[in-house]
Amino acid sequence: MSGSNFLGLDPSTAPSRGRTTWLTDRLRDALATGALTPGARMPATRALADELAFSRGTVVEAYRRLSEEGLLAANRGGGTGVAAIPMPRDRHGSSPPSEPATRELLNISEGAPDLSAFPRAAWLRAERRALATATAQQLGYADPQGAPELRTALAAWLARSRGVAATPGRVIVTAGVTGALSLLSQVLRSHDITTCAIEDPGAHGNRRILGHWLDGLHPVAVDDEGLDVAALSRTGARAVLVTPAHQFPTGVVLSPARRRALIAWAEGVDGFVIEDDYDSEYRYDRAPVRAMQSTAPDRIIHISSLSKVLAPALRMGWMIVPERLHEECVRTRWATDLGSPSLPQLALADMIESGALERQLRSLRLRHRERRDAAVAAIRRYLPGCRVEGIAAGLHLVVGLPPHLDDAAIAAQAEAEGIAVQPLSAHRSLPGSPGLVIGYGPHPSARLDAAIRVLGRLVATQP
Amino acid sequence: MSGSNFLGLDPSTAPSRGRTTWLTDRLRDALATGALTPGARMPATRALADELAFSRGTVVEAYRRLSEEGLLAANRGGGTGVAAIPMPRDRHGSSPPSEPATRELLNISEGAPDLSAFPRAAWLRAERRALATATAQQLGYADPQGAPELRTALAAWLARSRGVAATPGRVIVTAGVTGALSLLSQVLRSHDITTCAIEDPGAHGNRRILGHWLDGLHPVAVDDEGLDVAALSRTGARAVLVTPAHQFPTGVVLSPARRRALIAWAEGVDGFVIEDDYDSEYRYDRAPVRAMQSTAPDRIIHISSLSKVLAPALRMGWMIVPERLHEECVRTRWATDLGSPSLPQLALADMIESGALERQLRSLRLRHRERRDAAVAAIRRYLPGCRVEGIAAGLHLVVGLPPHLDDAAIAAQAEAEGIAVQPLSAHRSLPGSPGLVIGYGPHPSARLDAAIRVLGRLVATQP
Repeated sequence: MSGSNFLGLDPSTAPSRGRTTWLTDRLRDALATGALTPGARMPATRALADELAFSRGTVVEAYRRLSEEGLLAANRGGGTGVAAIPMPRDRHGSSPPSEPATRELLNISEGAPDLSAFPRAAWLRAERRALATATAQQLGYADPQGAPELRTALAAWLARSRGVAATPGRVIVTAGVTGALSLLSQVLRSHDITTCAIEDPGAHGNRRILGHWLDGLHPVAVDDEGLDVAALSRTGARAVLVTPAHQFPTGVVLSPARRRALIAWAEGVDGFVIEDDYDSEYRYDRAPVRAMQSTAPDRIIHISSLSKVLAPALRMGWMIVPERLHEECVRTRWATDLGSPSLPQLALADMIESGALERQLRSLRLRHRERRDAAVAAIRRYLPGCRVEGIAAGLHLVVGLPPHLDDAAIAAQAEAEGIAVQPLSAHRSLPGSPGLVIGYGPHPSARLDAAIRVLGRLVATQP
Repeated sequence: MSGSNFLGLDPSTAPSRGRTTWLTDRLRDALATGALTPGARMPATRALADELAFSRGTVVEAYRRLSEEGLLAANRGGGTGVAAIPMPRDRHGSSPPSEPATRELLNISEGAPDLSAFPRAAWLRAERRALATATAQQLGYADPQGAPELRTALAAWLARSRGVAATPGRVIVTAGVTGALSLLSQVLRSHDITTCAIEDPGAHGNRRILGHWLDGLHPVAVDDEGLDVAALSRTGARAVLVTPAHQFPTGVVLSPARRRALIAWAEGVDGFVIEDDYDSEYRYDRAPVRAMQSTAPDRIIHISSLSKVLAPALRMGWMIVPERLHEECVRTRWATDLGSPSLPQLALADMIESGALERQLRSLRLRHRERRDAAVAAIRRYLPGCRVEGIAAGLHLVVGLPPHLDDAAIAAQAEAEGIAVQPLSAHRSLPGSPGLVIGYGPHPSARLDAAIRVLGRLVATQP
């Protein structure tokens, strides 16, 4: 397939500024009209750039944007191909295509940020600066607790943005929240804590990780004030994983009375509260809820990550643990892998110090709020009468369904129509009312509207 | 301290090209003559650049080079300070300085590569390319086994350079050799293998990691053919960690007869051989010794890393395990941290595919061979009559000492004179003759000569 002829591209109609958007839109049209069909090879970026007399970067960026929309994909042999049929606005009523496996799903199931907004240029600048000044020691075997530069930057950032009380000497850099949970599980076990209580509903992924390392989990119900602490105390557990600032997935904030009760519980059982502060930076309508950690630093283990602000692929998180667990956590990290890679740590420290991380967060907060509004509007329109929860913060919300419906069945039907959505029951082990967890972070408003419209039709046509 | 006046720098004498080298040399002179004393603050890079009318990058690079020589160091409050007294060529006979703790040690103790040769520009180029084409999926939660792009590149690289037989589907990306050993220990334990045999002498660091995870270690003597397999079979162990291509620290190559005996042992006890291929890329006088893995892929676990070619700080390694252990290793990695960060994996894949890694290795091989030759020459000169072992490959060698000497005492005396060197006894738990392990990778010939001259004097003056 050569050049732009077959695409009918006329570069003379492109604006002198905004060529990337122009090219992206033209190519998207060609995909929608079938001029480009699944499996077809796209022209090489250099060839297309030459033919249009555009810079190659413009073409690369247009391909990248379409790749992130799931329309293009890297070919095995290099180059780029057409990955998927775009979802035209009028196809929702049609039957599923004959080869659903080859289609990319519109994935509204995860509480992920908009990864197409990853600050590539800022990250590269930070990494270049880190490399330019990195000493041989910084490139060598590093501190398993984390690069001192990053721990210093994080301590200040966490104090300012989350009210966390920790000196740099007490911050432990982890491989995301999973890295923190695996270390903690091992260390708690050596303190004869072999089970952990978890919120129900609660994050399915964390439940699986804890389940790998510990002997048992105790699901504890969540109500409108958050975790039911009275129920927790009946489990016999001495550790609990909670999401106080923004319960996952319900979005409830743990009430002040429950916070006090939770700390009293930990004192009473000589146990620990693991505070997963996973997406607290995204609060749209008022100031963020402060972290609990500073109110009982000898009982609360504070963990969080950059997965919701930058990208899960960075595997970058942190924890602050009570002093008596600190050394053992660092030693376990040392024995696991000697600590996180240095360069990304130094780059992140640079991004925090330079204000680039703060700017990224502000920009994402605006973008995600707009999408939250679009998702809520679509739910009101296509799922009238369904309760919407957890809209004040985060990257997802929960739609309550009428009690007689089977949320897993609806999610399966949605998947057959090309939409991945999580049933609330996937995050529960106790009985509870059905619902759908909708992640709006990665998706432009029009795609959210289209996806929720399908969900509305499915719910309306349930037997 | 302001600007360059006190340094007597005259920018008009600088060449128009090579200003960085000129500036580095002038500053090194100022350090050597005492114009700059330990603890003094260096001028800010921007201020000095302005005063000399140089680009700031020139000053930053000069500071960086001097930092890597251990002469400058980052100050706690930002900025750069004088870290250490440079070792003048005529100071070896003098008494130790009054404040040895404030001096940077000349560290010839580690088998590290020359980290000042880290290919910063090539790495940034690879990372920029990886970021330019990374999809949202690649920035999201990734494959715990490793990025498919990297596994594909590694499988081809390992087949070509080490004779390792593995499809991309069988390569597991790890957080260096330590990350591989921690996963393996956990998986072997679930197969009722709770102890491991190790070479004696053998790498102290790996012994500590295995000791953390397992219930016991069995030291097995190494002779001129490598590990004593008859002694291994008397231990009752079912797993052994060996360095067949280049035994650490002795440098012995495991003989063909011993390789066959080792595999027969593994078959006999239904056990596993962990082949640590840690620095096999550096072989100076003939072709590298092939890895063992392909001769018994159902018994041999092959592990290695980039710590000796790029930098330990990348925490990037890999392993290929027998099929029956594969899934469990990947699952354990998932539960530990969901896998390695994606961006460095994609950058490394790019460096392998583009040939940049091969070029780096060729260049380092030349540099390290030259240093090896300098170290050997210095040993012949200052430690006449001492046997030198392990010079054919790697980044270190071993100097055998007369049997009545205490190598740990000599290492302690060397440290008091500013030289960090490892006694052979630190890598042993069985009795054996004394020696010194000298890492030559990071050090220019003149520094190696100076350090070995000190060792020669210390050995000659032992009681």
